[in-house]
Amino acid sequence: MLKKITSSQNKEIKRLLHLQEKSRNRRKENVFIVEGQREISLAVKGKYQPLQLYFTPELIEFQDVLEIARSGHEEPAEIIEISKEVYEKSAYRGSTEGLIAVFKSRSHELDEIGFKNSSPLILVAEAPEKPGNIGAILRTADAAAVDAVIIANPKTDLYNPNIIRSSVGCVFTNQIATGTTSEIIDFLQSHNIKIYAAALQASVPYHQIDFNMASAIVMGTEATGLSEEWLENSTQNVIIPMHGEIDSMNVSVAAGILIFEAKRQRIVDLK
Amino acid sequence: MLKKITSSQNKEIKRLLHLQEKSRNRRKENVFIVEGQREISLAVKGKYQPLQLYFTPELIEFQDVLEIARSGHEEPAEIIEISKEVYEKSAYRGSTEGLIAVFKSRSHELDEIGFKNSSPLILVAEAPEKPGNIGAILRTADAAAVDAVIIANPKTDLYNPNIIRSSVGCVFTNQIATGTTSEIIDFLQSHNIKIYAAALQASVPYHQIDFNMASAIVMGTEATGLSEEWLENSTQNVIIPMHGEIDSMNVSVAAGILIFEAKRQRIVDLK
Repeated sequence: MLKKITSSQNKEIKRLLHLQEKSRNRRKENVFIVEGQREISLAVKGKYQPLQLYFTPELIEFQDVLEIARSGHEEPAEIIEISKEVYEKSAYRGSTEGLIAVFKSRSHELDEIGFKNSSPLILVAEAPEKPGNIGAILRTADAAAVDAVIIANPKTDLYNPNIIRSSVGCVFTNQIATGTTSEIIDFLQSHNIKIYAAALQASVPYHQIDFNMASAIVMGTEATGLSEEWLENSTQNVIIPMHGEIDSMNVSVAAGILIFEAKRQRIVDLK
Repeated sequence: MLKKITSSQNKEIKRLLHLQEKSRNRRKENVFIVEGQREISLAVKGKYQPLQLYFTPELIEFQDVLEIARSGHEEPAEIIEISKEVYEKSAYRGSTEGLIAVFKSRSHELDEIGFKNSSPLILVAEAPEKPGNIGAILRTADAAAVDAVIIANPKTDLYNPNIIRSSVGCVFTNQIATGTTSEIIDFLQSHNIKIYAAALQASVPYHQIDFNMASAIVMGTEATGLSEEWLENSTQNVIIPMHGEIDSMNVSVAAGILIFEAKRQRIVDLK
């Protein structure tokens, strides 16, 4: 028998609202919340373990929920039917897809990163701030199928609902790790991965770099750029030559240009 | 003697608030509003004519206002001192830079576009919606110093305050025109400019295209892509090969990748 909840005073729903309220509450339970069928499917496919799936049959078929729940390889999630009223009260995004999932968090340790080949391409972002930019960067990383995304000195919870939303679920499709700048530099150097730091000073144009070796492309923030530690420990600082009135670009656009130049070289050189 | 306004009931301030309220009110007077010293400087430098400059001496020196007002080549603007209270009531952005400018609008006709060389690089965006994406695209166009940005079937006022803000003033540094898709295709074809339409179907990878000739890179929306009219009238449809779980990228990132590949080819081929 499927459990069914029709009151938002129910204690499970109160817990759901409590989790949605603050990232601290989610951290305490070691869970995060995802809304949207596509995003939830990507999380399950990305081997995140769904704990509870709340659905309202007025917006999504039970069969579709089952299919999403079973597409992963972990233990099955608990599936709970909720009334449309309860759903509307619980949905943070005001979305209309009828499905809210609670997932078990995963650690993002650097030493858990696995590489499928000997010359991985990695994207590092130091202290990125705007969820919209982080989301766009994660979409680009997915499109380029980079081997890993590493966030240095993260300022926000990776499972921030706005990051999940703006990444269209790509926070789940990329291999992601976090760490301090020092830890990440150690990690890259110990794996013989070249470090290309985006910078304005003492830099060479990005298209003169050979990105065919194991490479990490490292982006700072729009406001202050990369920290000295990156600039001093890089293999080479690189610049996107700018010819306009202002001397900055959107950070997710700049990351896309660098990552896809690396991809282009790797594709063309394969021929 | 400098005019000074200390009451937000003053009729000039009422007019300013009225203009800020709706783009229709601005269109009626054929003006637009800019806040922020950098943005206002770029507009003046871009030969837009400031009509009024409202400043509060508690936040910006009169000398700095004068310098901004004189950096253009048009008739001098009227400079009006306002109290901090009036400024705070009038500033849409909640910005703290102490300066609000009313500028005269400019037409954005296709036939006013001028080219400095025989193989211009043009960026076309069809019906872009999010001010954040439009702003990022305009910043990229500035950085790449493209010859013109053309907006097809615009959905928003180019002088929308959110576009000005997210473009960091690059809405003033680019040569911009608007038109219907049909008009723009006619314009490009009559100028022998090759049309490269970003598309998923029947496309060749963008890095196989030779962008050295006069070229327009045409981007659609993330939701629906380009209209059939572009796809049917393009010289070649191009794709950014994607290797991830999802098949879309942020539109401003995709525009950046295509524009900078064209720039890269043009720089490398010059050597």
